[in-house]
Amino acid sequence: MKRKNYLLTVCLCGLCLLQQGHAQSNRLEGFSPASAQKQTDLEQKFDHLLKSSSIGANIKELSAEPHHLGSPGGKRVADAILKKFREYGWDAKIETYQVLFPTPKTRVLELTEPTRFSATLKELAVPEDATSGQEGQLPTYVAWSADGDVTGDLVYVNFGLPDDYKQLEKLNIDVKGKIVIARYGHSWRGIKPKIAYEHGAIGCIIYSDPKEDGYYQGDEYPKGAFKNEYTVQRGSVMDMVVYPGDPLTPGTGSTQKAKRLTREEATTIMKIPVLPIGYHDALPLLSALEGLVAPQEWRGSLPITYKIGGVGKAKVHLKTEFNWDIVPAYDIIAKIKGSEFPDEWVIRGNHHDAWVNGASDPISGQASLLEEAKAIGQLVKSGYKPKRTLVYCAWDGEEQSLLGSTEWAEDHQNELAKKAVTYINTDGNGRGFFGAEGSHAFEKFVTEIAKDVKDPETESSVFERRRAVDAVRSGSPKLKKEALAKNDYSLGALGTGSDYSAFLQHLGIPTLSFGFGGEDAGGEYHSIYDSYDNYVRFKDPGFVYGVALSQVVGRTVLRLADADILPFDYRSLQKTISKYFQEVTHLSEQIREENGIENELIEAKAYQLATDPQKIVVTPKGKEVVPDLDFNNLKTALDSLQISATKLYELQEQLSAVPDKKKEKLNNVLFQAEKQLLIPTGLPRRSWYKHAIYAPGFYTGYGVKTLPGIREAIEEGHWQETQEQIVVVTEAVNRLNKALGSAIQIAKDI
Amino acid sequence: MKRKNYLLTVCLCGLCLLQQGHAQSNRLEGFSPASAQKQTDLEQKFDHLLKSSSIGANIKELSAEPHHLGSPGGKRVADAILKKFREYGWDAKIETYQVLFPTPKTRVLELTEPTRFSATLKELAVPEDATSGQEGQLPTYVAWSADGDVTGDLVYVNFGLPDDYKQLEKLNIDVKGKIVIARYGHSWRGIKPKIAYEHGAIGCIIYSDPKEDGYYQGDEYPKGAFKNEYTVQRGSVMDMVVYPGDPLTPGTGSTQKAKRLTREEATTIMKIPVLPIGYHDALPLLSALEGLVAPQEWRGSLPITYKIGGVGKAKVHLKTEFNWDIVPAYDIIAKIKGSEFPDEWVIRGNHHDAWVNGASDPISGQASLLEEAKAIGQLVKSGYKPKRTLVYCAWDGEEQSLLGSTEWAEDHQNELAKKAVTYINTDGNGRGFFGAEGSHAFEKFVTEIAKDVKDPETESSVFERRRAVDAVRSGSPKLKKEALAKNDYSLGALGTGSDYSAFLQHLGIPTLSFGFGGEDAGGEYHSIYDSYDNYVRFKDPGFVYGVALSQVVGRTVLRLADADILPFDYRSLQKTISKYFQEVTHLSEQIREENGIENELIEAKAYQLATDPQKIVVTPKGKEVVPDLDFNNLKTALDSLQISATKLYELQEQLSAVPDKKKEKLNNVLFQAEKQLLIPTGLPRRSWYKHAIYAPGFYTGYGVKTLPGIREAIEEGHWQETQEQIVVVTEAVNRLNKALGSAIQIAKDI
Repeated sequence: MKRKNYLLTVCLCGLCLLQQGHAQSNRLEGFSPASAQKQTDLEQKFDHLLKSSSIGANIKELSAEPHHLGSPGGKRVADAILKKFREYGWDAKIETYQVLFPTPKTRVLELTEPTRFSATLKELAVPEDATSGQEGQLPTYVAWSADGDVTGDLVYVNFGLPDDYKQLEKLNIDVKGKIVIARYGHSWRGIKPKIAYEHGAIGCIIYSDPKEDGYYQGDEYPKGAFKNEYTVQRGSVMDMVVYPGDPLTPGTGSTQKAKRLTREEATTIMKIPVLPIGYHDALPLLSALEGLVAPQEWRGSLPITYKIGGVGKAKVHLKTEFNWDIVPAYDIIAKIKGSEFPDEWVIRGNHHDAWVNGASDPISGQASLLEEAKAIGQLVKSGYKPKRTLVYCAWDGEEQSLLGSTEWAEDHQNELAKKAVTYINTDGNGRGFFGAEGSHAFEKFVTEIAKDVKDPETESSVFERRRAVDAVRSGSPKLKKEALAKNDYSLGALGTGSDYSAFLQHLGIPTLSFGFGGEDAGGEYHSIYDSYDNYVRFKDPGFVYGVALSQVVGRTVLRLADADILPFDYRSLQKTISKYFQEVTHLSEQIREENGIENELIEAKAYQLATDPQKIVVTPKGKEVVPDLDFNNLKTALDSLQISATKLYELQEQLSAVPDKKKEKLNNVLFQAEKQLLIPTGLPRRSWYKHAIYAPGFYTGYGVKTLPGIREAIEEGHWQETQEQIVVVTEAVNRLNKALGSAIQIAKDI
Repeated sequence: MKRKNYLLTVCLCGLCLLQQGHAQSNRLEGFSPASAQKQTDLEQKFDHLLKSSSIGANIKELSAEPHHLGSPGGKRVADAILKKFREYGWDAKIETYQVLFPTPKTRVLELTEPTRFSATLKELAVPEDATSGQEGQLPTYVAWSADGDVTGDLVYVNFGLPDDYKQLEKLNIDVKGKIVIARYGHSWRGIKPKIAYEHGAIGCIIYSDPKEDGYYQGDEYPKGAFKNEYTVQRGSVMDMVVYPGDPLTPGTGSTQKAKRLTREEATTIMKIPVLPIGYHDALPLLSALEGLVAPQEWRGSLPITYKIGGVGKAKVHLKTEFNWDIVPAYDIIAKIKGSEFPDEWVIRGNHHDAWVNGASDPISGQASLLEEAKAIGQLVKSGYKPKRTLVYCAWDGEEQSLLGSTEWAEDHQNELAKKAVTYINTDGNGRGFFGAEGSHAFEKFVTEIAKDVKDPETESSVFERRRAVDAVRSGSPKLKKEALAKNDYSLGALGTGSDYSAFLQHLGIPTLSFGFGGEDAGGEYHSIYDSYDNYVRFKDPGFVYGVALSQVVGRTVLRLADADILPFDYRSLQKTISKYFQEVTHLSEQIREENGIENELIEAKAYQLATDPQKIVVTPKGKEVVPDLDFNNLKTALDSLQISATKLYELQEQLSAVPDKKKEKLNNVLFQAEKQLLIPTGLPRRSWYKHAIYAPGFYTGYGVKTLPGIREAIEEGHWQETQEQIVVVTEAVNRLNKALGSAIQIAKDI
């Protein structure tokens, strides 16, 4: 569901240099030399069982028709996946949840002044794309828009983000009682109507500008991969940074008999009507705007002078009505029981529902998942017995904001709290560079795997290729040098946008997310053109990155299933939290400095003097003086954590050859430790999110905020809350430290 | 002629903090308290004589018809200016030079493949602009293009600058034997065909992209101020960074009987045909390109996918033929003889020729010049006697590359070498912020004036308003703080683009250039729309900035004419050269570091790994290792200069009350000292440019390169030349130091 941008997750923090030089042969993180050899042999067999042709066939089959949540096609895809798992030898079943799902009944968008124009709201079938004209496609819309019928003055709000509204305030433009038009990009789409509503707008249009997603980027579909003027990005605008999943059942599985909120009580449903459009429909609206010319950074690539409007010249009528149905969401859950530790679960998931055909999103990832399942099934048939239980999941309703995975995780939360060793996620996949995000105690583990898997296009490992692109694209000689010298993969932090959220941020289960991309750019995302025909031209023509993804995830699953000591290295987590700590302290200092000089500029009347008197520009309001913040206890907690993480890792290294059963208790503490970072009461204003280190940003959506309680309090200027959140995080770090202490004790006792 | 961008000349170097707190009343730089009071009274009278209505009337009159070099309109404007000077009481005459001037006979631009399209090459008359449809307009073209008739494959080269060709090389695209199309911007236009030719292109098209100069910036003319699709920027493409002025008479005045080169011998005339076009004509050409999608930074605002072409799909026919006539250039020279020091000349100039009507460029500046002349004439009539001689100049042929001013300066070079105290230039002027560039020994002097003149739109001084905008637009809190704390105006350094070049860079005469702008943006530059109708809507509606310019320049002229001790402060020059010194040493270190990491990346095969194998991208060539450079002697010379500049200024401050005649010798050394910075043999490959500190960039054009010999040698990787140029500059600084030493001796002897 989340659009990939692997090249933006470049991390050059230079962490983890302590972890160099461990990737010699017969050395596998968490394995004794003997079991490492066995594991390597197993992985070679596994690799041989992976077939790109089989991945391609599955992509074709599972994207052959529209198969969104609640559709007949969706049911057929779920049944097909169930059948495949069973054929592969897995113990598979469908678990069904009953979820709310709005589909459109009425969609009207008209310019009423100064001229009349009715938006087409329709994508074009093209002969080059065999499935683009199929029956059963969901129309262009966003789920969780309110029902509404509004008419108002139109205002262009750029990306529709907090800084854009600050700019509007400076320009003396108010959106109250008006309809805003925002372009897609720079945040998750759901943030745009949410902020518009917070500022009093009565409706929100989101359009794809050719700058971000059209001819500016490359040839339009079907000549090239990019959006044509009619292509529309569907999606969810649920306020899922408050909680994802079924809006009516926060925190519990939406089973048939679950207690439900009313729609009015559900805080995550938008309060104003919202429609997404393509640039064919956006052009007449934006052209009609008068008033101030938009700031330079606000201008897209339509052949017009971008103006802000809001001066009563351009009026728009927006009407939306939805069927608010409860529909079944089919999660396919397939297991292979662990031979030694059946109650330690290695969970791996990818959704199967799409907005339309979804060849890339999500079927490319689903096909890799199935390929792994097939290969593991064959290994099991030839005698392989994973020590831990494997749980493979194909989720439904991801596109509507992680419905299937969230409901399942909430439904099974008690069992997961005990058993879940790790959750491993994928979603769409394509040609290009390796990307991995997740729990930072896994950095060393992921590095090892990334060095083991060959990039299909070059002779190098996926690690080396990633390092090369990071080095080449780094901004300065110093950063290039650092990137080139890196011997460890820097995991990105997880925000939201795919099915890992409930596992990581609600339940504290160690989580990883993998994919390839960066050479597969295009505009098919959530449109009718996310098709097999598109995929084989522009995404991963030979399905070779599908195989690479299976190799990465397969190794991750199999090593976690069989490790003597689970490959957590809490030194990396400590380093990473310390880096975030430095960021937030720096951020608070920076805001203090910015507010200071801002007040000096206001005092010196610099804004009046710098401004063209022919333009009405409001002098910024005086800024709050940032109080002193006490970060000392958190600093102390992180220092202690460093000592225990180092001690623990030394013991882990010494213990890998000790028989497994003896280490069960140690392993249990190792995989449970991250849960100590859960905040019992959750984050301010969104208690569902409990992780002290990772959360989606309240005003970014998909984009992560690390140390979210502290960071967002600073960003919003809530200084008392900042101090409170420092305490909350300090307590969480101390709990983790205590858990590592108990692990050290256990390890010493072995 | 040069397009203003005052907001880009922000200088935040924090220089000159030593010069604070001197602007109290009755304290004028270079004046005794008594003469300061007299001067202040004089300036008040001067101010009262300036009338915005008179400036407006002159702008209207002098831009009433096309009046380019060699045209009947041009002759009429010259005669009108002569008449005005005489009416104002000046001793005025026309000095005529005979200069080469190509005008178009044939202009053809056609797309021949894949479809046919003939460029219109014609701007549109519009009813809102009374002069836009006049007879006698020069057609859209650039002067100094070669005659030519070529057909070839079309290649888009972005701005057509060295870095763009490096990018093309990486992408394996060659322009040899092809026709390039470059967009206007990021350099002087003449650089684009010059570099194209150096790379083997056979023709060059320069177009205005709506991104830099069209609807992207604001409403198109006549609705708004910006270029419409038919508007074309005329101009010169002479290689004037080698030498400006008449191509046939470098270094000497092109009098009737001057010895002339043949056209073939003149190195400054382009070798390939060049045409400028608007975006209506550019769109079909750029749309026809295939091949690689242009890099992100290369893309403009036309509604197309910008591609590079050069793959044989789009062919263009370009034909140009010119009348290579010798025409008269009329410089109007008006004098008021100095009462005490008639052989010390304060020279002030602005050109009068335009590409078409030129209400803004140059008439707005010319009207301020005339207003000063009128006021000074009236002061003289009522008894004022300037001590030094005033020389007011209205130049012809500036647009063809500074013909009138250069030929006059070359013709009078011996007299100027003895007598010229200062040259003060202006050109087009408009609403907004004060901008000043020039010889850095004048920083304190200019600061004082900028604090004395009120901004017409606010209650502040033009200094304060400029400081405010610099502070508000600075990039970081630190830079904002520094900008707000500045008490001195930081002069920009002069490159080229207006009539000061011969004075400053060929003859070493201390020079200043002034103007207002930043609230007068538009696309009229060098088009038929640079008209009175346009000016009064978008440039300086009330002509109040015309008055402000007269106030600034008038003070400058009058104070220089009457100062007891000429207001040179060589401490500022020393500080500035030291800053440039730091920049070039830093630049050499930076290139050393960049080349080092580049070689490491190549060695590590990072480019191969980072590149999409589906694209042919050439691995960059290994870089030269930058040798050690010896900057020590230059450092020592600058340290010595600091000591003598400080000593000298202390003496200057003590001497202002001493009778004038005694100081004549000291003043002579003060105004002659900058000539010590002239390099006898000139800069490498362009001996006409002799100033060791300031020159237009060989590959930027208008844009200045400070310490040009050293800086360009480093940029081009000519390491031996770098070392040689360090010696050359060291010698120049030592000469200046010696001159200041002699001034100190003279001052001590007074």
